[in-house]
Amino acid sequence: MDLERSPLALPFPDMPPIAGVTLRVARAGYKKWDRADLTYAELAEGTALAGVFTKNVCCSTEVEMGREQVKLGRARALVVNAGNSNAFTGYRGREAVEQIMAQVAHHLDCEPSDVLVSSTGVIGVPLPKDKAEAGVAAVLEADECSWEQAAVTIGTTDTFAKGATVTAMISDTKVTLNGIIKGSGMIAPDMATMLGYIFTDAAVDHGFLQHCLSSANKRSFNCITVDSDTSTSDTVLAFATGKAGNAPLTSFDDAGADAFMAALDDICRQLAHLVVRDGEGAQKFIAVTVTGAENDESAHRIGFAIANSPLVKTAIAGGDANWGRVVMAVGKAGEPADRDKLGIAFGGIWAAKDGLPLADYDEAPVAKHLEGREIDITVDIGLGEGRATVWTCDLTHGYISINADYRS
Amino acid sequence: MDLERSPLALPFPDMPPIAGVTLRVARAGYKKWDRADLTYAELAEGTALAGVFTKNVCCSTEVEMGREQVKLGRARALVVNAGNSNAFTGYRGREAVEQIMAQVAHHLDCEPSDVLVSSTGVIGVPLPKDKAEAGVAAVLEADECSWEQAAVTIGTTDTFAKGATVTAMISDTKVTLNGIIKGSGMIAPDMATMLGYIFTDAAVDHGFLQHCLSSANKRSFNCITVDSDTSTSDTVLAFATGKAGNAPLTSFDDAGADAFMAALDDICRQLAHLVVRDGEGAQKFIAVTVTGAENDESAHRIGFAIANSPLVKTAIAGGDANWGRVVMAVGKAGEPADRDKLGIAFGGIWAAKDGLPLADYDEAPVAKHLEGREIDITVDIGLGEGRATVWTCDLTHGYISINADYRS
Repeated sequence: MDLERSPLALPFPDMPPIAGVTLRVARAGYKKWDRADLTYAELAEGTALAGVFTKNVCCSTEVEMGREQVKLGRARALVVNAGNSNAFTGYRGREAVEQIMAQVAHHLDCEPSDVLVSSTGVIGVPLPKDKAEAGVAAVLEADECSWEQAAVTIGTTDTFAKGATVTAMISDTKVTLNGIIKGSGMIAPDMATMLGYIFTDAAVDHGFLQHCLSSANKRSFNCITVDSDTSTSDTVLAFATGKAGNAPLTSFDDAGADAFMAALDDICRQLAHLVVRDGEGAQKFIAVTVTGAENDESAHRIGFAIANSPLVKTAIAGGDANWGRVVMAVGKAGEPADRDKLGIAFGGIWAAKDGLPLADYDEAPVAKHLEGREIDITVDIGLGEGRATVWTCDLTHGYISINADYRS
Repeated sequence: MDLERSPLALPFPDMPPIAGVTLRVARAGYKKWDRADLTYAELAEGTALAGVFTKNVCCSTEVEMGREQVKLGRARALVVNAGNSNAFTGYRGREAVEQIMAQVAHHLDCEPSDVLVSSTGVIGVPLPKDKAEAGVAAVLEADECSWEQAAVTIGTTDTFAKGATVTAMISDTKVTLNGIIKGSGMIAPDMATMLGYIFTDAAVDHGFLQHCLSSANKRSFNCITVDSDTSTSDTVLAFATGKAGNAPLTSFDDAGADAFMAALDDICRQLAHLVVRDGEGAQKFIAVTVTGAENDESAHRIGFAIANSPLVKTAIAGGDANWGRVVMAVGKAGEPADRDKLGIAFGGIWAAKDGLPLADYDEAPVAKHLEGREIDITVDIGLGEGRATVWTCDLTHGYISINADYRS
């Protein structure tokens, strides 16, 4: 199926090289498509590794193995297979992953556990070992490629390549963080068919890198949803090659650690937003901010109840400031809320306060806001100080078309 | 918006009169539609009342008041307003309900608390008191109407009138239960924009009637979902006039109590299925049965994770036996499950067992099953004895069309 480029797409940024990272792509032919589908990143010796993974209990072999590798905290290479998720494929799926790890480890003369593997695509079909072997052999011989080529190659139903780049100063050393990500459906609270990779030349202890990534993840990837479904393969990995030459960061007591954390927060949020911007069928990018909840976690859950509500998402698709559906979604979240204290605003214009429609509510500017591509919904619960923002997209005919026809 | 009759509609059954129940309809003109929109049921003195209501914390005034009336356990009349849900309307909404109760109570010379009121339709607009007053005055003068006319009149976005009738023997007395229901979207675990009314001539103590209704509700209305959204107004009421002349049922120790409970279970399940059959945009009726879960509650939650998954529902819409999406949905439920013990069947044909696709899996009969209107998905978790069945419908372009355009 040929998908049109999302109207919410952003152009791919200029991304500088990262010392210690070499990218290559090749064609393994996992699906009948005429494009590269195997991405390889070679990483300098000494690269630190961190990762966060799907909470789906029926996760893929790659995720199970990745969790163990993250504990070791080091990486020499990353292989991403696109077109086949290798999930729910039992021992045959595991053998294919182990084969890839061994093949790359042999080439680099490293431990197989230093080779990270991700796979994305159809569930339930074991990754074909012969295609994987030939694909890996080809990619090891391939020329170096650009960040954009790598971002295109990890994609599946994505309609645009997604990347972001930020810098930070650690003492007087400038470090760069580059990220690429894929994912467009099955995006939910605990992440999604989303594979994201962040590469930095900063020197960061792997334990501290994990701490920073887990923290950034809570404010970014765990705050987006497209359709409430949660993939079995979601993965975000961070690799720090240390080639920038800064004194390695080990805790927030180190100079520059705060700047690094801020940069990581920034790139994770940029990448997360790009995934929502490619939400299947998305026509509008929606930010839902909840204030006045009993606490931040409660605000987060209320935000997700709104962001996952098909009735709210279809109302936004229809340009309808239907705050009644927002009330409904607040009420179904099961969190503390009082109907008679609720306030609801669209684009900063309050439609209801203290549980009642505002007498002087002027729908015209709200209707104009809803005609745009970027929609803001704010809900004030009126109980406490808890707040959270989550991001989603509208629910349109495009979502149905993509998902009723995908596999076949 | 004119909606086409659901392809899953069933014909309205022949429903006999219920002694002690008189139905009438009138036009209050809550919306600009050329049809009756106010339904009135007059109930004999001594009628017992039971009810179950939405768990949405932002519920309507009608629901708040209904909960109190159910504690009293008696009813003389029911008024149902269609076209305006009166939810999120503050004191003005409450005044409108109290006015209706007083008006009917004056006519019947009963307590206002003996008059039940339900409202369904758009949220956030107070029920207009002048229209309600004129509508109630008209309905009290109207001729008696049929069950089908009442079922049509309580509807909003419904595409067909929904009713069911069953009988039971209490000792040597035959009793009848008639039910009508409305609802087609916003149907979710804890009920939905669903208003259901069950009338019986059986004599049943109100406490026991409540016990039976709560019990039947768990196996029927709480086992259906259309879109995971939960209305602020959901209500199912049961009225027992006692005119059949049986010895009043007060507990399961009474002769005939089991037969009555079975009949109530039957009619609640029939009514619940009718709501799913009118799910917005529904083309297929889907039964999801989960076996082998750790316990029944866990099976229920897993069933709902599947039944609410947009990716599963769009796959069924597309006639795709995409059991990988079912695995994903099992995994996201957050319930005990082991990927390598899962079995998944469509229409009784196993596609996967013990976490692997079956070697001899023949997709042809499954594809044929998925072409039909009635789809069965069975998931065996392989851990324990817990089981549950929930019902839903597919997710189609029709859902988007209806909900992106509804209010305006």
